[in-house]
Amino acid sequence: MMIAEILSTGDEICQGSVIDSNSAHIAVLLNEIGAHVTRHSCVGDNMDELASMLSEIAVRADIAVITGGLGPTIDDLSAEAAAKAFGVDLQLDPDAAKSIKTYFAKFSRKMSRSDIKQAMLPAGASPIVNAYGTAPGFIFNIGRCRCYFLPGVPKEMERMVSEAVVPDILAFFGEQQDTVTLRKQLSLFGLPEALVNEKLNRFESLFPNVKLGMLARFPVITVKMTAVGTDRASLVDEIEKAGKWSAEQLGDKVFSLEGRSMEAEIASLLIKSRVTIGVAESCTGGLIAHLLTNIAGSSDYFLFSGVTYSNEAKVSILGVSEKTLKTYGAVSEETVREMADGARRISGATCGLATSGIAGPTGGTDEKPVGTVCVGISMKDKTLGYRFHSPFKERLSNKQIFAICALDLLRKQILMAS
Amino acid sequence: MMIAEILSTGDEICQGSVIDSNSAHIAVLLNEIGAHVTRHSCVGDNMDELASMLSEIAVRADIAVITGGLGPTIDDLSAEAAAKAFGVDLQLDPDAAKSIKTYFAKFSRKMSRSDIKQAMLPAGASPIVNAYGTAPGFIFNIGRCRCYFLPGVPKEMERMVSEAVVPDILAFFGEQQDTVTLRKQLSLFGLPEALVNEKLNRFESLFPNVKLGMLARFPVITVKMTAVGTDRASLVDEIEKAGKWSAEQLGDKVFSLEGRSMEAEIASLLIKSRVTIGVAESCTGGLIAHLLTNIAGSSDYFLFSGVTYSNEAKVSILGVSEKTLKTYGAVSEETVREMADGARRISGATCGLATSGIAGPTGGTDEKPVGTVCVGISMKDKTLGYRFHSPFKERLSNKQIFAICALDLLRKQILMAS
Repeated sequence: MMIAEILSTGDEICQGSVIDSNSAHIAVLLNEIGAHVTRHSCVGDNMDELASMLSEIAVRADIAVITGGLGPTIDDLSAEAAAKAFGVDLQLDPDAAKSIKTYFAKFSRKMSRSDIKQAMLPAGASPIVNAYGTAPGFIFNIGRCRCYFLPGVPKEMERMVSEAVVPDILAFFGEQQDTVTLRKQLSLFGLPEALVNEKLNRFESLFPNVKLGMLARFPVITVKMTAVGTDRASLVDEIEKAGKWSAEQLGDKVFSLEGRSMEAEIASLLIKSRVTIGVAESCTGGLIAHLLTNIAGSSDYFLFSGVTYSNEAKVSILGVSEKTLKTYGAVSEETVREMADGARRISGATCGLATSGIAGPTGGTDEKPVGTVCVGISMKDKTLGYRFHSPFKERLSNKQIFAICALDLLRKQILMAS
Repeated sequence: MMIAEILSTGDEICQGSVIDSNSAHIAVLLNEIGAHVTRHSCVGDNMDELASMLSEIAVRADIAVITGGLGPTIDDLSAEAAAKAFGVDLQLDPDAAKSIKTYFAKFSRKMSRSDIKQAMLPAGASPIVNAYGTAPGFIFNIGRCRCYFLPGVPKEMERMVSEAVVPDILAFFGEQQDTVTLRKQLSLFGLPEALVNEKLNRFESLFPNVKLGMLARFPVITVKMTAVGTDRASLVDEIEKAGKWSAEQLGDKVFSLEGRSMEAEIASLLIKSRVTIGVAESCTGGLIAHLLTNIAGSSDYFLFSGVTYSNEAKVSILGVSEKTLKTYGAVSEETVREMADGARRISGATCGLATSGIAGPTGGTDEKPVGTVCVGISMKDKTLGYRFHSPFKERLSNKQIFAICALDLLRKQILMAS
């Protein structure tokens, strides 16, 4: 079994300004090709710490993936630390220099002197092209440990792992030829992790060859199933059954049987059912529109969102009646119904969606505490109003819950209507 | 100086199913009380790895904070590993048992037999009450290293760090009376990292006692300065000069002298200058509204955003003329000026801001390639139109650049007007 370790570098991670999401991404991919990840580590931009950490890893692991510290600035120390730890010099790598030049040429940007620092690699290292940024990565063998140095920028790192590191590991260590890896994912919203765990507690005994994992991307949870083995037919059968069984246990909280995001799931549903949508957002403050328009091609179904924070805007732009606002308040089923009708009318969409609530941290009352949200859905033949409570007091968490909650209600209504 | 290390445990983190956000949270709090965090590590639910990691940390650090592995299940190994690593037995701690019983009584839940396992602590450990979950934490001194074991559930861990760990560290190690840590941050937009670095390349020689760091939170870069030492007066003087010098080098790209986000900076500027704002978003798809409304109290200055994706919505809702759209196209200075005027008019705000562009990945032409954005600003006495190009082809990156670019133009106009 190949032993793998992951090291992330940088003061911003070590001091906690940035949460390290790179290591999890890399661990998943290393796992998939049969490597056993035993440790993650993180050190700051400190030459001695970095060099000593690299020496330690090299005696324990067969594979090491190191992220960060490859940029042009003075606190980018990874190449120098690798050279120092293993007693070699840094030298200009012509291929790495070419990769940097190509990147700059592509964007008609001028290279600065410090950019060329990124092509100084430890003697004996081979560069990894970075087509998505300025810093090339490199591979450097230290004794029995093959070390992959990658930039810390997630977008660059992710592509380089998939396109260079994984193929190199498979070529260098040999394919685990007879091994099949199958995967299945479900996305769900509206259950805490502990309860998802409880509902699936018989999973291990029912499906002994499928490994269950969970990934919480607040407020959505993705249930991940992985089956690794040699008998493809029986693995396919078992993981299919496992997926079906899990979906049954989790019921209507599951919104995607393919592990997709809510906005991607809604996008394909709207296109398939030829529904167009107009949105009126109060408490979600543009987040619903932002999520929907993150999907390329969203102009086919997303026509308009009015972020109407003030009561005046709700009246003048969406046509909510002043009487409704006065009688029931801005956060009420009555108001969101009129907002949804207004959004549908002025956008000319077939469906209107509206939110009004109290995201916090202040603004709550006894009757309508922080976390209260009302969602309105306007369709050709009916207008619906809902009310929910989130247990959170924190503004951004509540905006996220409110937005996903509204999109999930919309999803269910469209499914029912079609 | 107190050296601190952080260890997170659990297969779900080590295998990448869950991103470790606990370590960043703990690092920030340890930093604040003057501890120097040198390493984070993570190991899976494996007795040998865990025990060996604990032994390594205990010889390097004065303080260790360990999360995870304290629950009732068989893969919760932290207490046993601590006992094993330091050659003591596990024993039932009456205070820990009481804390578990109190928690269950509070929620009228029945205790299961496996729950009492959580009260088995290494001999000599003192329990830390967990009022927010079932697993108590504990403090265990290993040689010179004081180890704090906490549950991995973020909400439980966070409260226990603030309410028990931080006070204990301060009491045990005494306030670090003679060391001062000073920090200064600048936020900027519109320069690549390499160029920022080049502009600041004399920093180290000019300010030898201030450490320079950089944090890229796309598309914003934060320049971080830290001065640690014993002579407060001279450090204050040096870091103030360093901040001033850096701001001069970076010129009008700097938008916050306090390292704030663009939306926080705009918020305080709008409040100070009593400007209210109405927005019309095409290519940014709600992101500007989302950013502005992430700030609590934004209803004081943010009145409305119309996310008008379609030309029809631009005409019917914002009052853009069909002739302008036909003559110049949706992505043009002329159209965004009319959009900005429309947003200002219908929202009743003192200022209107509008975006229209091509976020990609498709939809570009030779004349208006992917990455083109037009920004309109409407004020009482003038309406302005701008055009920019981003070098990126990726949709979400472009939405982010476009939104920050528009807010930065607005910021400059408001500063000029006031």
